[in-house]
Amino acid sequence: MKFKNKAVFFAALFTCTISIAQTHKSLEDFKPSSVNQPGKAFPQVNSEGRVRASILATDAKKVQLDIGGVKYDMVKDDKGVWTGESAPQDEGFHYYQLNIDGASVPDPGTKYFYGAGRWGSGIEIPAVDQDFYALKDVPHGLVSENIYFSKITNSFRRCFVYTPAGYEKDAKTRYPVLYLQHGSFEDETGWPTQGNANLILDNLIAAQKAVPMIIVMDNGYAYKPQTGESAGRPVSVFEEVMIQEIIPMIDAKFRTIADREHRAIAGLSMGANQTMRIIMNNLDKFASYGGFSGTSNYPSSMEIDPTTFLDGKFNDGAAFNKQIKVFWLGLGTKEPNPFPGSVGAFRKMLEKQGIKYTYYESPGTAHEWLTWRRSLNQYAQLLFK
Amino acid sequence: MKFKNKAVFFAALFTCTISIAQTHKSLEDFKPSSVNQPGKAFPQVNSEGRVRASILATDAKKVQLDIGGVKYDMVKDDKGVWTGESAPQDEGFHYYQLNIDGASVPDPGTKYFYGAGRWGSGIEIPAVDQDFYALKDVPHGLVSENIYFSKITNSFRRCFVYTPAGYEKDAKTRYPVLYLQHGSFEDETGWPTQGNANLILDNLIAAQKAVPMIIVMDNGYAYKPQTGESAGRPVSVFEEVMIQEIIPMIDAKFRTIADREHRAIAGLSMGANQTMRIIMNNLDKFASYGGFSGTSNYPSSMEIDPTTFLDGKFNDGAAFNKQIKVFWLGLGTKEPNPFPGSVGAFRKMLEKQGIKYTYYESPGTAHEWLTWRRSLNQYAQLLFK
Repeated sequence: MKFKNKAVFFAALFTCTISIAQTHKSLEDFKPSSVNQPGKAFPQVNSEGRVRASILATDAKKVQLDIGGVKYDMVKDDKGVWTGESAPQDEGFHYYQLNIDGASVPDPGTKYFYGAGRWGSGIEIPAVDQDFYALKDVPHGLVSENIYFSKITNSFRRCFVYTPAGYEKDAKTRYPVLYLQHGSFEDETGWPTQGNANLILDNLIAAQKAVPMIIVMDNGYAYKPQTGESAGRPVSVFEEVMIQEIIPMIDAKFRTIADREHRAIAGLSMGANQTMRIIMNNLDKFASYGGFSGTSNYPSSMEIDPTTFLDGKFNDGAAFNKQIKVFWLGLGTKEPNPFPGSVGAFRKMLEKQGIKYTYYESPGTAHEWLTWRRSLNQYAQLLFK
Repeated sequence: MKFKNKAVFFAALFTCTISIAQTHKSLEDFKPSSVNQPGKAFPQVNSEGRVRASILATDAKKVQLDIGGVKYDMVKDDKGVWTGESAPQDEGFHYYQLNIDGASVPDPGTKYFYGAGRWGSGIEIPAVDQDFYALKDVPHGLVSENIYFSKITNSFRRCFVYTPAGYEKDAKTRYPVLYLQHGSFEDETGWPTQGNANLILDNLIAAQKAVPMIIVMDNGYAYKPQTGESAGRPVSVFEEVMIQEIIPMIDAKFRTIADREHRAIAGLSMGANQTMRIIMNNLDKFASYGGFSGTSNYPSSMEIDPTTFLDGKFNDGAAFNKQIKVFWLGLGTKEPNPFPGSVGAFRKMLEKQGIKYTYYESPGTAHEWLTWRRSLNQYAQLLFK
């Protein structure tokens, strides 16, 4: 993880301060977003994917809708209600905020989601394929909050565990496990909330497109406790926590099939990078990998030397193909730099090494949750078969 | 439920617009609140229970901290950061908001909680007895999100289910169940989030003060689907959903002891009112009741006529005492009207009827979550013994 680069990347992504006045004529088919708070009429979304926000701020001088890296000026009516619209947004889920006289705050109309390093507002632009992650009348698995104390980090941690429908019923059936990680500036709530991981699997399993599986969603931020005044940059110990604490806990607490063939790992962005390192360092633990919008050569687009990259773990393509059941990469067609370049360089290396893998492109999506929902939907269908 | 009265009550509670300038001298031992977002320094709380909030709002004219029904003016520094303090607050958890130039918004420093009919900010004032609801290194149960489709309401609903530590381990042990309800303008997230129900039970069970039990936390708002243009006021069907859908689902999905002796019900405020009606109408289903800051004669303080109240269900005290294992009432010493009056009138009726019950007073707390955490802590120790 290159924190410095990440910080620059996110600064670029989130603090663009262009103000755009409302000059377009929007289609008047706005409907409340599906992730609004109960009973809240705003924000709304129209069929063009424009977001219309509205807030009472009687005495404000300037109110803006801050979405997709752009701040859109809102307009006040005679009752003090400010309303404004964004340009059309990509299909899927987006984080956003309101800006009231210089204060960046969540929109009181939406539910809140952890992303971009904060709990903030979210909006759902209906997608052409939204059925695969919709809440439907199929058997539903449970999502359990599991709190544990980590000796390695000397702190309480938490993971969410999806158990498929029927898990409680038959106390003898054992299940394979997918370890599924969020991206940078996100946490363990990402996949079971805006990721809809549980609904995606409920739907796949009901349609018999995926094998019933357990999914473990933990927090990718884990640091060695710092002691003394000479403490330097925090040292990530997520791999140690995963291997020494999370997996043994899950295998003890849930009815898992506790071998490498029945254990997969995947992650998005930073999580793709982390989990690739974890599987390649622990091939006795996992047999399948999914990298959603990320690879471990991030952020470089340079040609990869397989003799040195990740200690030569990709150097013997034939051995790799024997050991790995599913090696899967996904990317949105609208992802910003450096993702197309770094994932592209990684794929070139795989091909040069004769390594078998599946590649998926999510049409019309960027470095956002619809890319990752679709990636999970594709990837999960290949696992444990 | 008297919605009209509730609305008036909440309006009084939440929209008081007194502005209080900062004239006191606070103790300078402020610390970040325990329910802040990760890494957020504000809001803070000092040993007097004062809340200090802070937000960047460069161009704002007026920013206020809105807590406990009072709006406190905040003061701007030369960098555009507004800071302000409240008067000392009661121990425990409180909902609050910021007001920026007339816009009521959540404080971007805190995690968010559903209460007062919205997702908004919360703050934790350390309590003298906070140990009983603290996250400690004891075995932790799981809190599971359970989604289901209700035919009665024709909608998806959700409950959270606490299963005690060890539930997964021994697939043969069966457990008693407590059905635990939130108050008005709250939802099923209240008890497992700001209620700390899981931590309270984790601690009680670890100390062998409570029997390991399952807790089901559902949403008390459930209405008959409205059809046609003549649809009138929505009709609550929560009792039907509880009896016909929730209990059968829980008994089928979890390892419960499915008889009345091993089923208890409790609720806070509106939930106390609802659950009292449910147990008295369904004595074949439940044997124990807990009413936290509420009774079914709410909001009346008039003398209760047991021959007519709830269809005479309290009329035969001797029969009542034979059927009910635990009948429990709790109230904070600082609760506002009408709670002391209505709970008082209810207790008088119980005493007149010779009905055995336990009464608990939470010292120094009002109609808020510390009263209810303490109530659960007391009540749970008496159950299923």
